[in-house]
Parts: sequence; C-alpha cells; structure tokens
Amino acid sequence: MNTYGDMFRVTVFGESHGKAVGAVVDGCPANLPLSEEDIQKELNRRRPGQSIFSTPRKEEDKVEILSGIFEGKTTGAPICSIVYNKNMRPKDYSAIKDTPRPGHADLTYRLKYKNYDYRGGGRASGRVTIGHVIGGAIAKKLLSYTYNIKIVGYTIKIGKIEGDFNYYKNPNIFENEKSLERLMESIESNPLRCPSMNEKDMEEYVLKAMKDKDSVGGVVEIVALNVPVGVGNPIFNKLNGELARALMSINAVKGVEIGVGFKAAEMYGSEMNDEMYFDDDKNIRFKTNNCGGILGGISCGTPIVLRIAVKPTPSIGKKQKTINLKTLENTEIEVSGRHDPVIVPRIIPVAEAMVAITLADLMIKGGFIHPCSL
Amino acid sequence: MNTYGDMFRVTVFGESHGKAVGAVVDGCPANLPLSEEDIQKELNRRRPGQSIFSTPRKEEDKVEILSGIFEGKTTGAPICSIVYNKNMRPKDYSAIKDTPRPGHADLTYRLKYKNYDYRGGGRASGRVTIGHVIGGAIAKKLLSYTYNIKIVGYTIKIGKIEGDFNYYKNPNIFENEKSLERLMESIESNPLRCPSMNEKDMEEYVLKAMKDKDSVGGVVEIVALNVPVGVGNPIFNKLNGELARALMSINAVKGVEIGVGFKAAEMYGSEMNDEMYFDDDKNIRFKTNNCGGILGGISCGTPIVLRIAVKPTPSIGKKQKTINLKTLENTEIEVSGRHDPVIVPRIIPVAEAMVAITLADLMIKGGFIHPCSL
Amino acid sequence: MNTYGDMFRVTVFGESHGKAVGAVVDGCPANLPLSEEDIQKELNRRRPGQSIFSTPRKEEDKVEILSGIFEGKTTGAPICSIVYNKNMRPKDYSAIKDTPRPGHADLTYRLKYKNYDYRGGGRASGRVTIGHVIGGAIAKKLLSYTYNIKIVGYTIKIGKIEGDFNYYKNPNIFENEKSLERLMESIESNPLRCPSMNEKDMEEYVLKAMKDKDSVGGVVEIVALNVPVGVGNPIFNKLNGELARALMSINAVKGVEIGVGFKAAEMYGSEMNDEMYFDDDKNIRFKTNNCGGILGGISCGTPIVLRIAVKPTPSIGKKQKTINLKTLENTEIEVSGRHDPVIVPRIIPVAEAMVAITLADLMIKGGFIHPCSL
Amino acid sequence: MNTYGDMFRVTVFGESHGKAVGAVVDGCPANLPLSEEDIQKELNRRRPGQSIFSTPRKEEDKVEILSGIFEGKTTGAPICSIVYNKNMRPKDYSAIKDTPRPGHADLTYRLKYKNYDYRGGGRASGRVTIGHVIGGAIAKKLLSYTYNIKIVGYTIKIGKIEGDFNYYKNPNIFENEKSLERLMESIESNPLRCPSMNEKDMEEYVLKAMKDKDSVGGVVEIVALNVPVGVGNPIFNKLNGELARALMSINAVKGVEIGVGFKAAEMYGSEMNDEMYFDDDKNIRFKTNNCGGILGGISCGTPIVLRIAVKPTPSIGKKQKTINLKTLENTEIEVSGRHDPVIVPRIIPVAEAMVAITLADLMIKGGFIHPCSL
Repeated sequence: MNTYGDMFRVTVFGESHGKAVGAVVDGCPANLPLSEEDIQKELNRRRPGQSIFSTPRKEEDKVEILSGIFEGKTTGAPICSIVYNKNMRPKDYSAIKDTPRPGHADLTYRLKYKNYDYRGGGRASGRVTIGHVIGGAIAKKLLSYTYNIKIVGYTIKIGKIEGDFNYYKNPNIFENEKSLERLMESIESNPLRCPSMNEKDMEEYVLKAMKDKDSVGGVVEIVALNVPVGVGNPIFNKLNGELARALMSINAVKGVEIGVGFKAAEMYGSEMNDEMYFDDDKNIRFKTNNCGGILGGISCGTPIVLRIAVKPTPSIGKKQKTINLKTLENTEIEVSGRHDPVIVPRIIPVAEAMVAITLADLMIKGGFIHPCSL
Repeated sequence: MNTYGDMFRVTVFGESHGKAVGAVVDGCPANLPLSEEDIQKELNRRRPGQSIFSTPRKEEDKVEILSGIFEGKTTGAPICSIVYNKNMRPKDYSAIKDTPRPGHADLTYRLKYKNYDYRGGGRASGRVTIGHVIGGAIAKKLLSYTYNIKIVGYTIKIGKIEGDFNYYKNPNIFENEKSLERLMESIESNPLRCPSMNEKDMEEYVLKAMKDKDSVGGVVEIVALNVPVGVGNPIFNKLNGELARALMSINAVKGVEIGVGFKAAEMYGSEMNDEMYFDDDKNIRFKTNNCGGILGGISCGTPIVLRIAVKPTPSIGKKQKTINLKTLENTEIEVSGRHDPVIVPRIIPVAEAMVAITLADLMIKGGFIHPCSL
Repeated sequence: MNTYGDMFRVTVFGESHGKAVGAVVDGCPANLPLSEEDIQKELNRRRPGQSIFSTPRKEEDKVEILSGIFEGKTTGAPICSIVYNKNMRPKDYSAIKDTPRPGHADLTYRLKYKNYDYRGGGRASGRVTIGHVIGGAIAKKLLSYTYNIKIVGYTIKIGKIEGDFNYYKNPNIFENEKSLERLMESIESNPLRCPSMNEKDMEEYVLKAMKDKDSVGGVVEIVALNVPVGVGNPIFNKLNGELARALMSINAVKGVEIGVGFKAAEMYGSEMNDEMYFDDDKNIRFKTNNCGGILGGISCGTPIVLRIAVKPTPSIGKKQKTINLKTLENTEIEVSGRHDPVIVPRIIPVAEAMVAITLADLMIKGGFIHPCSL
Repeated sequence: MNTYGDMFRVTVFGESHGKAVGAVVDGCPANLPLSEEDIQKELNRRRPGQSIFSTPRKEEDKVEILSGIFEGKTTGAPICSIVYNKNMRPKDYSAIKDTPRPGHADLTYRLKYKNYDYRGGGRASGRVTIGHVIGGAIAKKLLSYTYNIKIVGYTIKIGKIEGDFNYYKNPNIFENEKSLERLMESIESNPLRCPSMNEKDMEEYVLKAMKDKDSVGGVVEIVALNVPVGVGNPIFNKLNGELARALMSINAVKGVEIGVGFKAAEMYGSEMNDEMYFDDDKNIRFKTNNCGGILGGISCGTPIVLRIAVKPTPSIGKKQKTINLKTLENTEIEVSGRHDPVIVPRIIPVAEAMVAITLADLMIKGGFIHPCSL
C-alpha cells in the first residue's frame, strides 16, 4: 500500500505526469514548530537539475501545506502537503507505452494492475519519492526537536570506485558536533554527495558511462546519531528489520547492511562482539560498533550505521532488447527520456527520509516521544 | 511486537526456559490439509543436536496442535501449536544475570523492559524461532498446495570460505524438478547445509574455531521458485522490502541482498538490466535474473533470490570484556552455556520459514490465494 | 488516527477554516471507471445550504482529483481528492477560543493536544466529513460496479416524532428495484430526508426548536442491499462490529443498532430467531430478518439494517453555562456561529459513506473483490 | 481475524470441543505483577454451571500461563494462557451437522469457510470468549494498577422487565468507593447479576421461558470509572467507536449505546449538552453526564457509560423450522444440547473484558501507559 508507519504515518500519492504529488503525515504530535521551509529544504536536496548528473526535467518542487498547522505549530491533525507537477511532457513517454523498459517496473505494474499510467513511469517514477521526502522532513524535525537526532547519508562508492571515507574508517568524525557539521557541508558541496578525497575519480567514472549512453550505481552509507537506547522491538519489528524494509522501499536498492554487514560473515565471534565497559562516569560504552547500533533488534546507544546498494539507473540511451506487448514481438528500445545517469546522490535524501520516518514511528510506539503532544 | 503478517499472521510466544514455546497462526484459509507431521518435519530441521556444530541441549521439540484443525483440514480458525520445553537448566545462566554477554541482546532487553528473563537468553534466545518455524511450516504447505512454490535455503559461505555453489553459478539446477530434488538432498546431507564441493573445508574451518573457543558466521542463499507474477506492492510494501524485514527478524542477520545485491552497485545499467523476450509460446522471458525475481517491488516470474549475512554466534567460551550491572564494575565473561559454534545451518529453516510466511501473507493480500477457503 | 480501513483505506485531512479538506483513498482496485462527478454527486448531498435547516455557510464544495486516475479509470494507485475551503470566517469563532462550547469537542481536543485550531471547531468540525464522503463515494461506486450493492439512508425519527416508515414496517419496498427507486427519490425530495407521511410534523418540530434557539436530534436507518453471504469475520472483526465502529466515527452518533436492535432484548428466542427454508429453486431464505442481515458477525444474504441515534446539534444560540479556560472562571456562552438546527439529514450521506467504506474494505479483505484489478 | 488491539493485543484461539481454548496477550508492559489467580478470578465469573440459568456443561476452566511472566511480573513478552477443554460431548452435536440452528452462526460459517467444526458450534461457540476474558483480566489488572480504573457491568433489563437500577438513576453510587463496592457485591450475589430490587421478577420471567423451552435476552450496562481525560482519537478511532466495536465482538449483542444513547435523539440541544463549571479547586466539572464520558471521540473525565442489547440465546428446545443442507429439504429442529436460557449474566464478564482490552490498547497508544515497562 501507500502508507508507511503505524503511529507516525506517511501516506504518499501522485504520479510523475499527474496533477500533483504529495503526502499526508498523520500522527505527528502537536506543538512541533513546522513550516513549509522545513519541508522545502529537504525537497531541494532531492530536486532534479542540481547537477549534470541529474535529469534535466525542470521542476521547482514547491511544497504547499494544506492542513494540520495552526499558529506555526502542528496540532496533532494530519498534515497534507502537495507539490504540483509543472514540467510534464507526456509525449516523451509514448514510446514506452507498449515496450516495457528493461530493469523498470513497467512490465510488473502493467501485469499486476492492467491499467498502467505509463507516462514517465507514472506511479513507479522516482518522482513519487517527493512524498517520502515530505514525510521524512517532518520526521527529521520531530527527531531533531525531541532528541537532537541527526541522520546523515553520503556516497561511499560509485560503480567500482570505492571512496576513502566511511563510518568505520572515521568513526570519530561522528562524535564531534563540529567535525560532523564539516562533513555534512562536504557532502552537500559536490554533485555525487561523496565526502571522499577521490570523489573526482567517481565523477569521471560517471561521465565515461554517460558517453556510452549507460548508467552506474553505487553504495550509500547512512548514519543516525543520538538515537536513545531501547528503540525497536525484540522479535518481529526489530529496528534493523524495519530500517531494512524502509530502505528497500526505495526503487533501485538491492541490498541493505547494518553495522559491518556482510563482513560479519567472515569474522570470528571474538572479533565481531562489541565489548562493553563503564566509562569514568559509569556510563555504558562499547569498544567497537560492529553491530551498527543495534543488538537483538533494539538500539544500544551507539550510532546506527546502514549501507544500501543502489543499482544503476535502468533508463539508458543504449539499445536494449525488450518486447512489444501489443504486437507480441521481440523488439529493441533506446530510452530517450530525461533520466539521471547515476541516481545515487539524489537517493540520499530519500534514504535519510525513510530512516527518519522509521525512527519517528518506532520512537512514538516505543514511548520515547509522546504520541499526542510535545 | 510478536505478530508477523497482516492476513496470514503468525504470533509467537515463549521463552528458552519457560514452560513452552509456540505460535498461533491466524488467517490460514480453510481446507488446507494439515497435520502435526507437516510442522514436525520442519522443526526437526531446526532442532538442536543434529551435529557436532549445534548446541547439545536435548530437546525433542515435539509439536502439539491445539486448535484450528477439523477432520485433517484447516477451518479458517486460528491454529495454536505448542512445544513444551524439556531440557531446561536455568542454573547454567545465573552467571549472566548481571553480566550481559557481548554481542547479545542481554543488555538491550534489560534496559528496555527492566524485567529480563535472563535464563538462557529468555525471549532473546534462538529457541523462540520454533514459533517462526511453526508458522513457516504452515505457510510452506499453503504455498506448495496452491502454487507448487518451493523455498530452498543453503549455505554459500562459512567464515572466509566461499562455497563453489550458488544460484548465479548454477541457475539451471533450479529449473528442473529432478536436479532441484538432488540439490535439496545434498543440502540436508551435511552438517553445514552446504551443497558445495568444498564443504569439508568449511567444516574444518569451524572445528578450528571451536578449538579456540570461538565461533564463525557465514552467508545463506534462499531461492523461492514458482512465485507468480504480481506479488508485492509498488511503493511501501515492496516484495523485497517485506522479505528484507522478514529475514532481519532473525537474530544474527546483518545484511540482506536481493538478486545480485551489492554487486549491482558495480554494474553498468546495460549489464544489470534483465532484457526481456517472448519465447516460442509467446511467454515473457528474461535473459538474466540480476533483479532476483523482483522489479519495482513486484515479482516478475523469475526465481526470487535472496542472501543473508549471518554473524558468528555471540556466545563463545573465549574470555571477553563486559560489565557487571550490579557492582557497576568492568569485568570479564566466558560464556559456558550450551551454544552452536556456527548457527548458519540451523538458521536456514528459520530463514525459509520467514520467506514462506511473507509470501503467504502477500499472496493472500494480493488476491493470489483466497483469504477464507481454498 | 485519520485512516479508516485496512485494504480499502481512506485517509482524511483538513480543518474547517484551513486551506482545504480532502481524502486519500488507497486500495481501490484498478479499472474502476471513476470521475469527479461520481464524488461531486455525493458531496452535493452533504453540502451546507441545502435547506433552511442547514448552516448558511456558503461552500460550493467542488472536488478536484489529484492522482490515481488514468484514462477515466482507477490505476490501483492512491486517489487524492481535495476541496478548497472558500467561505471562511475565522473571526466568527474567536469567542470560543477560551470558552469551550458545551456538548462540543472543544475541551477534549484542547486538553489532549494543547494546540487547538478552534476556528470553526477546526478538525472537530462536521466539515471534515467531506473526506468521509469522498471515500464513501468511491466505495459506493466500487460496490455498485462489482455487486450492485445499494446503500440507502433516511430519517425515521426527529426529536420525539417517530416517522411511519422504516425497514421493518415495509421490508418489501427494498425487494423491488422500482419501489426502491421511488423511495430514494422521496428521501431526497424533502429537507429532512424522511420518506414518512408525517415528515411535515417533523419540520414543524424543528422550526419550533429554532425559534427557541435550540436544536433537535433524531434517528437514521441505513439499509445495505445485495451484500453477498460471507462478508465479515467471526470473532473480532465482525461485520456488525466494524459497521458500529464506522458509524460511531461520526460525531453526534450516540447509539447503533443492528436488525431489531434493542428490541431484541425484549424478545423470546423463538420470536427472535430467523427461521430458514429452501425456496422452490433451493435457494436458502429466511422468514424474517430480525438479525438485520448478520449472523455470527458474517452477512447472511438478507438486507443489512442499521440504525443510529443522532444527538441534537450542540451549537445552539440559547444561553449555556461553561467555563473560561483563560480566566478560570465560570461563564456563559451563546453560540452565534453558523450551524444546523438539526444535523440529521446532512449526516445521512456521511453515514452511508461510512457503511460503504466498511463494506468495501471487508469485501476486499474477504476475497469478494480483487484487491488489485477488476 | 482473531486479534484485537494494536498495542495491547489479544489473539484468541480454540474451539468448543477442541483440545484447548486460550489467548496470547501481547503488548502488556513489563513489570505488571500478574499471576494465574488474576485470570482465574475472572474466568470463574464466566464459567458455566454457576446457576440454574447457565448450561450444565461441567468445566473447571482452569487457566495455565505458558509464557511472559518472570518472578511474578510481566516481562513485556507475549503471555500465552490456555484452558484445556474437559467436558466435551461431540456426539451431542451430530444432529446439527447438516441442519443449521436458527439464529446461530452455523450457516454463515459453513458457507464462508466450507469446513465447519460444528461440534458445539466450534469456533462460534460462546466458549471461545474464554480468550476474551483472559485478555480482559490482564487488561483490567493493568488499568487498575496504573490508573485505578474500575469496570463494572450489570443487568438492567431481562426480557420486558426493566430493572430499577441504572447509572442515570443513581450516578452518585459510582462516585463513592464504599457504595461502589457494595454495588459490586450486590451484582455478584444473584444469578442474573442484577442489582435491582425487582431482580426476583426477572428470575421468574426466565423460569417461565425455560418451561416453554424458550430463552430470553436483556440489557447490560457497563460503567468505566477513573478513565483520564484524553483517551481516544478524534476522527476514526474514537473511544466510542472502538468500544462499540469491542462490544459488538460479542455474539448476541445487537445494539450499543453510549451515555443516554437513543434517548439523545429525543432531547433538545439545551437538554443534552453537559454544561461545564469549575469547582472550588478549579477542577473542570460537568453538571450532567449525558455524553457518557466521551466528547468528540475523546474521554472527558466523567464515567464512561455503555449499554448493550443482548438477544435471547438462539439455542432453544422449542421446535423451529430450518433446512437440511445435505438433503436440501426443509425440516425442523429442537436444539437439545446444553445451553443457557439467558446468556445475559455470563456475558457481563466478557463485556467488561472487551471494554478493558479496548481501554488498555487506547491508553497505551495515547501515551497514558508506557508501552514497554511500568
């Protein structure tokens, strides 16, 4: 369905070439200061046209809040926010009406629903993540306001080029407010949202693929800081499970890791286990954070560390084999529409949004944030 | 919470050293032939004591169905099944009462609930997955009965030793009923549930770790066959998202991949995209299955391919640093209880169960299986 | 929360004096023909200003569909519909800012959320039922399209004046398409939506109360026809339970009856039980319909008969005692805003909507309507 | 389905003549003192054989807790409790195998599921409310422990005989701990659970019906005391809506009223509205409680007052017309099994249980009770 969360609930709607896209956020407690600017800021990070690596579709993505705010604060009522679509070119997509693009959802939507709004991928378009980002912006505000939680995503790999920055190489950068701020500036200051020294190599890697009318993927790491101990449930709604599902809600994500992830499979128990100790103030500390902030499905107080594998954009200008569902003949397609040669940097605000929504929902359910009023 | 699924719902209960563990399965349609044997068969695959690599705790794990069956068939009413615990040694665990084991949920449970049944890890024990397996056994029966769906899990890596068998190396084995049967026999015939030629190397790898009072992890691949086109939802309840969450519900899982997984990040769009064609009978086919059977969150008819990273068992005899929550002093622990040096093979039936439950739930919700009566 | 239904889900939003009110309908299967007219028709029945008995607030209540429709049909994607508010007079309500109106939700909202959009009752205003009616219009279309289900509501009592028409007096009128049509015309043709011969007496009763600056209540009966056998669940999600909850979702409803309702308490088993027989075509028939179409929580094929008690509109011009939350003093209030002296007729389309939404949801969940595509 | 509640969740299972009936209660916060006695006490009030008015089936109804308790307190883990069936006489019911009893769910279950465990009504038997009462006992303990909430149910009408005691005649009795205690003793001290002076007339009324092999119904009132202000949601999960659904979950309930209920339809706004005032301590008070403790779906601090209409037991010895589903012929039936001539008194603990479960769930969701640990 199109609703995420139980107590902090985001319901998204809209198609790539319909009238509008948007979200209804329900369950945000009353008395959170909230303005359109809070949402616009995050939408701007997701907006197309930010660099040569993103689709040239021209959209202001200006958000309008229709309900749920009174005198600058939430009231506990549902917050409906919409973004009207402007730069629609339905004609661009008539070619794909009967020829599903390889790697796309064109075929599965069509077979499942038997009435597919194919224009720009319709409901399967990346454009619908505007709703995710709206929900995430409100969740982020709530988490920041109540617990000073910060959620930071960045690119650590593009194609086969591994960046030299990631959480496990530099855990200390996340412990200090100043260095964290610098990190975030560094992330936003380049088109791939990668704070590594070798980011330029990645850019070149993408440019080369663009010349071949091809696309590339990558890996994104997301770190959530200041999450209190006890978030998440022990059996089926484990914090890691909910986060994995949230991130897999983003098209293009093919894998999710928590903490050291697949590397854990190669480690001995004595290496993997994070030993505990009391610091001088008798606070519980961990020597390492291999677990990525979660033990037994429940947050343990260390930073939550996640990684997602992002596949290359399926829309490519290169010729590919496909089928024509009308003529029932095999055919070929060159996807000429507007698309990102690498979706990784624009997925980051969406991934952060999904992490924020999941945390907000679990923290309300877990008694960390009052469900009605702050 | 302790319930999984919306329309095919499994509610699990019980502690490692309580009276019983079990599950209530609600939403299984009426008229499915079902007996205790169907469940027992799967429980036997999860049971301790199957090899030198598993805990020596002696449990028959005999299941008793208390409700929901009439004249050998389900009635649509909830099916409660229980397994009484027999071989409890609560004394074994008094050592961990105040000293949380590194890598375990002891600490987080204790801080979250403030009344922790620490005996054998209580609710955090692997023993509670008996409930998962009960639910999975019923789901498997339902999927097999209605769509001949088969779910096959096996080890593809132990520690640093990669097996020479996996789906992408041998996709054809899964296309043929006979070869699939031989594969399944081969999986069940060795203690690591690994159908690779180098399985013995893996056994030695584990034995070496055991000598060091240490433990190892590994990677499990799970393939689901015959899932029809159209299962899963396009936005938030994507088939991949639901499966990722389901698998992350198993303690020890630190990563989930669908299809080529993290390798997708390294591929070009032209490599990753699975091209389509009509076969001679005008059936839609894919040249490759890099997507792992899911496009846009919806099954596309090819085998569903999943991989999970299993961390090494946190319980190890080796000395580890930890804390004493009573004395508030730093201390050390050697976990002497009964535990598996490698949990990978016993996790396989649990992982299969979670995949089966998820598919059953989504297929009922998606209109593939009638919710009331077969 | 603000979402109703599990598989046919209506999420409503908006305040009386905010920018807009509306609803997102999720889970409507693809391929249902749907236009703005389908919704507008129902909104017009709920709209203010239809008679001297309703609030003089001037609202066109023009609906705009923002998503989910392609080439005149639903696509399975969420349908967002909005109605912009036009005739807002926030000033009218400054008087109630600190003096909660007796019988209203002013006080409880304020105490629960601590930030109350009091303008026109904000979220507690009857105006928010526009969202309910939008959801209901789509549900009605779906039920009519798939099963020819009809949902008819009408007034059977105003104040102490009992009408001479109700289901149990004239069950045969509901069995014939022609007479049913005439009934529906008769309902819509008078301001109280009462098809009784003594409807004029009721009008006079209300006019007299209006002169006293007072308000009156009444009883509405709702009949749902052509609901197939088997809708509803046996234990906790009984059809009657879900319908009772749905109708209690309407402010002003203080009681719900199914079938003969409270009269059942006075009957002997031998009177109450509806005897069964086979008709000449071996169809199962019931001699009576005391059960109101539901046995053991499950529809049995006879018309579903419901009644709701509607309390008098709490907003009255008459002087009432109340409190001032700012000065903490006892005070008095004369509610001068625009309000209906009797809300009964305008509640009817809302009640029908809630019945329709509930049936649509249960029929999708119960396998009667395919969840993805018609 | 068979689960009630979102955060305080009761999953019930079992059939009248199966091995056992019971419930899994999930979401009860940790650290609530709980023993089998707490549950047994409530089960004893529901147990058959308490008087000449109840079925002679001999059942001890002894409860056994299987999980979720450690050192006398809840741990936050699910609490599974079971009652083994003892006095099964499956033979008694072979007569109804093919001839559905009028007024019973026999027919609808059979048509819906196509595999009906008809023995004693199977899943449709009143015996399954043991699960409800188990859940209610734990909810009552939780509500009493945290807010001193008391839930009191009693008969106010049997057949056509109206009792002389009800909340609106004697509201003051509920304001005083002592008088309330005396009331509760008076309720439990007679077979009809009616504290009215004319209770003996009711007994005679029932005895007369018994002589005619017939059955009678009645009306039950339930009052919940000490519920804090703010419980319930404003739009769709109104406190009244949730309570109505909960009570309609009990077979035999044909109507639900809140506060003055259907009488509200006859009142003027100026009569119905409960005027507010500050008492000497500046506490908000209401002059009347016509609303029954709920305004706009949210509790307002006054006692919650509910009434349910209970239909006469459908099982009667009197000859009734019905059908034979095997021979497809019209036939007659005299239900000779063990049944209550009046189910009203034994429904009271079930109704109280449903109210308690609903309040517990809403109070956890509303932030009144911490979801994890007390």
